[in-house]
Amino acid sequence: MTTDRATIERTVEAIRALDGSTASIAALERQARLTKPPGSLGRLEELATRIAAIKDEPRPRLERRLIVVAAADHGVTQQGVSAYPAEVTPQMVRNFLGGGAAINVLADHAGARVRVVDAGVAGEPIEDPSLVRLGLGAGTSDITEGAAMTRAQAERAIAAGIELLEEEIAATGVDIVATGEMGIGNSTAAAAIIAAATGRPPAAVTGRGTGVDDERYAAKVAAVTRALEVNRPDATDGLGLLASVGGFEIGVLAGIYLGAAAHRVPAVIDGVISGAAALIAQSIEPSTVEAMIAGHRSVEPGHTATLEHLRLEPLLDLGMRLGEGSGAALAMTVCVAACRLLDEMATFEEAAVTASDEAVEPE
Amino acid sequence: MTTDRATIERTVEAIRALDGSTASIAALERQARLTKPPGSLGRLEELATRIAAIKDEPRPRLERRLIVVAAADHGVTQQGVSAYPAEVTPQMVRNFLGGGAAINVLADHAGARVRVVDAGVAGEPIEDPSLVRLGLGAGTSDITEGAAMTRAQAERAIAAGIELLEEEIAATGVDIVATGEMGIGNSTAAAAIIAAATGRPPAAVTGRGTGVDDERYAAKVAAVTRALEVNRPDATDGLGLLASVGGFEIGVLAGIYLGAAAHRVPAVIDGVISGAAALIAQSIEPSTVEAMIAGHRSVEPGHTATLEHLRLEPLLDLGMRLGEGSGAALAMTVCVAACRLLDEMATFEEAAVTASDEAVEPE
Repeated sequence: MTTDRATIERTVEAIRALDGSTASIAALERQARLTKPPGSLGRLEELATRIAAIKDEPRPRLERRLIVVAAADHGVTQQGVSAYPAEVTPQMVRNFLGGGAAINVLADHAGARVRVVDAGVAGEPIEDPSLVRLGLGAGTSDITEGAAMTRAQAERAIAAGIELLEEEIAATGVDIVATGEMGIGNSTAAAAIIAAATGRPPAAVTGRGTGVDDERYAAKVAAVTRALEVNRPDATDGLGLLASVGGFEIGVLAGIYLGAAAHRVPAVIDGVISGAAALIAQSIEPSTVEAMIAGHRSVEPGHTATLEHLRLEPLLDLGMRLGEGSGAALAMTVCVAACRLLDEMATFEEAAVTASDEAVEPE
Repeated sequence: MTTDRATIERTVEAIRALDGSTASIAALERQARLTKPPGSLGRLEELATRIAAIKDEPRPRLERRLIVVAAADHGVTQQGVSAYPAEVTPQMVRNFLGGGAAINVLADHAGARVRVVDAGVAGEPIEDPSLVRLGLGAGTSDITEGAAMTRAQAERAIAAGIELLEEEIAATGVDIVATGEMGIGNSTAAAAIIAAATGRPPAAVTGRGTGVDDERYAAKVAAVTRALEVNRPDATDGLGLLASVGGFEIGVLAGIYLGAAAHRVPAVIDGVISGAAALIAQSIEPSTVEAMIAGHRSVEPGHTATLEHLRLEPLLDLGMRLGEGSGAALAMTVCVAACRLLDEMATFEEAAVTASDEAVEPE
């Protein structure tokens, strides 16, 4: 057994189902005593109760917020599936490191720190002390011609995600994590994963990604179809699915989800690529989903299919399709607000406010 | 002409249609140069562009944020329309002043200051130097028996809202305002306004408010129906509509919207009562709506009817129905994020990132 496989196995073994948590019962009881009509904060109440269950804390506070942005290149770009050349991947990594990307603005807005991960970017190494370099490879192989990576590389990617989260937990603590990614071509890999995991046809789960015209869109659907024919991935084998049609950054994010579930850290999913990583984690250990929060609904069709498969309802629906963790970062602020309401609002007794004379919970 | 009527008239005269603003064109052009695929931030891009148009600034920053929470009592509570006794109105005003209510937590989360307004709360005066006391009256008259207030009181309520916003603009500046309210019985008044303004039947726009059982719900629909029969409000006369079936806090919020439009301050609408106030403002001057942002979709059925009538699409849909400005405060954080993205993101040129080779804007 490799070290990476052992890391994954001990993590999976640590993941527990969350049903009947005493913390969530305490949270529910507190919600009923806060100065508001029962249920009137809607999904914010459910969200805070769910986070209480994940963290096993009756009044969780989300003060230490982390966003992991993993970047990697994809051999499938040679099939003409993107409106952007592959050189944009390292360019955007430099933009993340320089603070000029959307995720930097949204992370600052959310009060979260950003860890940028080179999970397998092609070209010249990016020299920056704040960049986490995993050395997984210079991009995946073209999935229309064979497997994206070896099974050992897939294990390394997932274990690296677990280790990264554990290092952050050890260093500063992590109360909530959100996942982001960058990689020209990665919405093609994501579509292949989603088609395999959900059983839907490639055309139904392939979107326009960063924005492609009809010709490139047809090439993209063809590439996904061919990748599935060539690799014949098994949806019940998450590691194999990642190795056959995935991406290095997708593997790292799957590791983040597994680590988050094991360490009871709520993990906010972003768009279609983060969602594909969530499907990999779900395939490896279904209970991983219990620690996930769907940040938003991307306009990518594969994302809705993914959320249905994960049985998660997104918090936001703002027509976003950028990736990078942008929608998850915005949703993180909603999670923070929900937990602050649960923790900070006065109870009827504290505020000397008369409670409702009806015990009925309105619909 | 009274002073109040003059205040309203000069405000209405200052409201301009926003089409073709050079600021919004500059914002659109900048959006296209930022390091992201065109349109990939979805509604956040539209929102920032719209706020640029409202404020007539190409890169608006929303640093000075105000939430006005207006409270008042309603004579219609004697018809048994609420699950809470009227004494909860002043109790909740004290809770707002003490910082224990949901709006206090959400305002702090949004970095906004809260002004609490006694627009007409019954009972003992609340002595608190931070409370804005307007002296409009000790609650409205029962709208099932006649008009809620005189036309002079309606003018005073609206003028007071305008003056309050203008005082805040003069004192500290206001880059964005959100509206909230509190008043046992005010979802009944709101339903009457919405039915009159939209032409929909009372049962279609009356909700369960803070949460009432079937018996009280029937009493509420009957009260709305009776209020419309007794008062026969004219939807084209916003002041008369307010006077006949409205509330003092609803008038103050209508004044906030009119003042916001006149002074080009984006105004975030909250739930069904704030929405009813927006309908009053729309009836007085239709262009007022151009400065409004629909914060969220309340579960109250009258709110969806209201947003359709205003032709506004809400930013959030979280099953909330609390009022107080809670949904608007959360939506304010989305507005702030949208404007920060427009202002702070690097351009392709600044970040040395290759732009798309396609001019096509994907759907």
